[in-house]
Amino acid sequence: MSPPDPNSLEPSSPHELGVRAQSLLVVLGSISDDPTHLTRLYLSPSHRRAADFVGDWMRTAGLKTSMDALGTVRGSLDATSPGPNAGRRLLIGSHIDTVTNAGSYDGTAGVVIGILAVDEIRRRGIKLPFGIDVLAFGDEEGVRFPTTLLSSSAIAGTITAEMLLKSDRDGVSVRKALMDFGCDPDKIDEAAYDRDEVLGYLEVHIEQGPVLEHEKLPLGVVTSIAGQTRFKCIVLGEAGHAGTSPMGLRRDALAASAEIMGEIERFAREGREHSLVATVGQLIVSPGAVNVVPARVDFSLDVRAATDQPRLDAIAAIRTAAREIAERRHVAVMIESYHESQTTPCATHLQDGFASGIERLGLPVLRLTSGAGHDGHAVQHLTDVGMLFVRCRGGISHNPKEFAEPDDLGLAVEALVGAIEHLAGHFGGDS
Amino acid sequence: MSPPDPNSLEPSSPHELGVRAQSLLVVLGSISDDPTHLTRLYLSPSHRRAADFVGDWMRTAGLKTSMDALGTVRGSLDATSPGPNAGRRLLIGSHIDTVTNAGSYDGTAGVVIGILAVDEIRRRGIKLPFGIDVLAFGDEEGVRFPTTLLSSSAIAGTITAEMLLKSDRDGVSVRKALMDFGCDPDKIDEAAYDRDEVLGYLEVHIEQGPVLEHEKLPLGVVTSIAGQTRFKCIVLGEAGHAGTSPMGLRRDALAASAEIMGEIERFAREGREHSLVATVGQLIVSPGAVNVVPARVDFSLDVRAATDQPRLDAIAAIRTAAREIAERRHVAVMIESYHESQTTPCATHLQDGFASGIERLGLPVLRLTSGAGHDGHAVQHLTDVGMLFVRCRGGISHNPKEFAEPDDLGLAVEALVGAIEHLAGHFGGDS
Repeated sequence: MSPPDPNSLEPSSPHELGVRAQSLLVVLGSISDDPTHLTRLYLSPSHRRAADFVGDWMRTAGLKTSMDALGTVRGSLDATSPGPNAGRRLLIGSHIDTVTNAGSYDGTAGVVIGILAVDEIRRRGIKLPFGIDVLAFGDEEGVRFPTTLLSSSAIAGTITAEMLLKSDRDGVSVRKALMDFGCDPDKIDEAAYDRDEVLGYLEVHIEQGPVLEHEKLPLGVVTSIAGQTRFKCIVLGEAGHAGTSPMGLRRDALAASAEIMGEIERFAREGREHSLVATVGQLIVSPGAVNVVPARVDFSLDVRAATDQPRLDAIAAIRTAAREIAERRHVAVMIESYHESQTTPCATHLQDGFASGIERLGLPVLRLTSGAGHDGHAVQHLTDVGMLFVRCRGGISHNPKEFAEPDDLGLAVEALVGAIEHLAGHFGGDS
Repeated sequence: MSPPDPNSLEPSSPHELGVRAQSLLVVLGSISDDPTHLTRLYLSPSHRRAADFVGDWMRTAGLKTSMDALGTVRGSLDATSPGPNAGRRLLIGSHIDTVTNAGSYDGTAGVVIGILAVDEIRRRGIKLPFGIDVLAFGDEEGVRFPTTLLSSSAIAGTITAEMLLKSDRDGVSVRKALMDFGCDPDKIDEAAYDRDEVLGYLEVHIEQGPVLEHEKLPLGVVTSIAGQTRFKCIVLGEAGHAGTSPMGLRRDALAASAEIMGEIERFAREGREHSLVATVGQLIVSPGAVNVVPARVDFSLDVRAATDQPRLDAIAAIRTAAREIAERRHVAVMIESYHESQTTPCATHLQDGFASGIERLGLPVLRLTSGAGHDGHAVQHLTDVGMLFVRCRGGISHNPKEFAEPDDLGLAVEALVGAIEHLAGHFGGDS
């Protein structure tokens, strides 16, 4: 349960790496805004303490640390062998903010694994033809402010000073919170990398889903971060007495919604090859009385897929089916999109890097889509993105029960080291 | 807008009867516990005022009035021709309490139509071989106290002193409220009729459903008051990330519920010939987040039919289907009944009485089930029950928009007069 021993420079086994990763995650998991559970919101006092710990561990791993205008901790290692890319940097990042009542792995595991991988590269004396920056972002979860991915958008150069004027529930703006955090919000331009300066972005993250566990594999290579569209759906029927309205004369908004939900599920299942998923997570029935035929149903719809076209096709099919159901049942259906993000494809050579790292461990390479959004969504505007997933128990995330085996974390460190070595070969010559 | 003119003893046309019924209903509709809308709860001050008006109108119609221990206003007319049943009574009743934010027709229409029908019998000099009691019950809606049908149960002799100890939200017991109302709750036994004393019970009520309007008929004969069973249903699946849980690995409680709801609707539609209806009116999704696969759904289920067996068969089919769906989807389903009432069949000779009254108006006789519960549910324990339905606009009830055409109300008075004359023939000889 202690930070890595700075006096040891011996290479570590995956098991040892896993135990060290777990130790660091236990430390971070204890740093919370709330004494009863883990909640570490962007720019909160606990975020500040966590950033300080991360900075210490980076320095212990031989990295030169700094903090950018958005509070991102940056740990830099310069190239250790000459070449055309010696002045450029490979970015390795994830986030250290959490949701409310969070687990200890989401985001933080990627930061810790990044630090340990770079530390291990140093211990093993691996020569790097490019520099590495390990980045601990702050605003990934988007819980405190009505913003998300601010920190990773800043390094991509896609934020503006205006975005910092948004305030949390207590009326504290991002700008004010940044100043309290010790940052200079007027220097957001300096947080951005030049495109030419960067070789790519790698992120290790717990899967937050059940696929790797189901496949009995500790690691998987992400092929893309799924695009997603979110909808508010409203079905308007007519209230009626549950006893006196014959089935054939009803305009039951809930029965119609149930049929629409059946179609949504069917289309999503048919899109399995595209990792299509569709979820109705919220549903509210009005008037909501035992003996009244529902007049109105409001429900949410979240659709994601590995690539954009299957998602858009499924949405079109859902709209058509809903319209047909509505017409047949004499109800009205409104399906209104309120959020849409495009797919972030992972670059082939970065996927290959992680695949190489996994193969070196003697493990099969499973490629899968990330259904969840990640900092890579923002960083894609700067550079190529690659992601490695680590198995987590039951696919559970955003929950105190979130858990990844220490050995799996160790294998992830090893796979990241392998990926960096693979990219050292890839970027060692002319790029 | 005035009570019937006591000085006029001319027979009235259906249109005139309708206008008079409407006038009385407007008066009752203005008597409310709440100045902004119609709410007239059992034993409230407005119930007391409404009872006084009803008593006045009964006396004007030539009835001798009294009030029983439960606050039921009783208007009695003795037999006017000799015969074996001259000492027995035909009961005609409905209720004058309302739901919160009610319409002006539910219950009250039946009381007013009963008074006008008896008044009309007197005006027309129709000889009656039995007495008639018109009854204005108080506790049909069951809104104020955790009781229902107390008043009609009292005349059937099926209540106990203990039932009067239940209290409203302010801690006022039925017993205390009865004393404040001017009743003697120790005389509940005297409220009960002897079985031998009673010939039958007739009730006129707005349909509270869309069938008559759909069939373009003002009146219909009720064949039975539907039995009903109510269930609490719980579906337990597993929460998951909406983006990272593949469709095939989900245990989505809402998707399972949607499929179960589809089966519920299908079985109900197949039972059309039995007037089977099944309604899911309440549904709550947990955790209820846009991006979380639902872990739990709680929903209500209300099943009714014209006779008991089709209802029980449908419930069994629904249970089987739900179990199969649950097994296939690896979710748990619990379906727990918390209320059940048996079907109240309407007596054939009382149905025939109303049918005769309708035919005399030159109208076709439509027979239909009452999906809603009524005082007849309680009175069936005392005597045979017959019911006449009056068309109401849009099938809307329990709502300020509740409306029945004055002409339809007039036709209902006329059909009730016809039914009484028919029963005068039926009960005139040896019974």
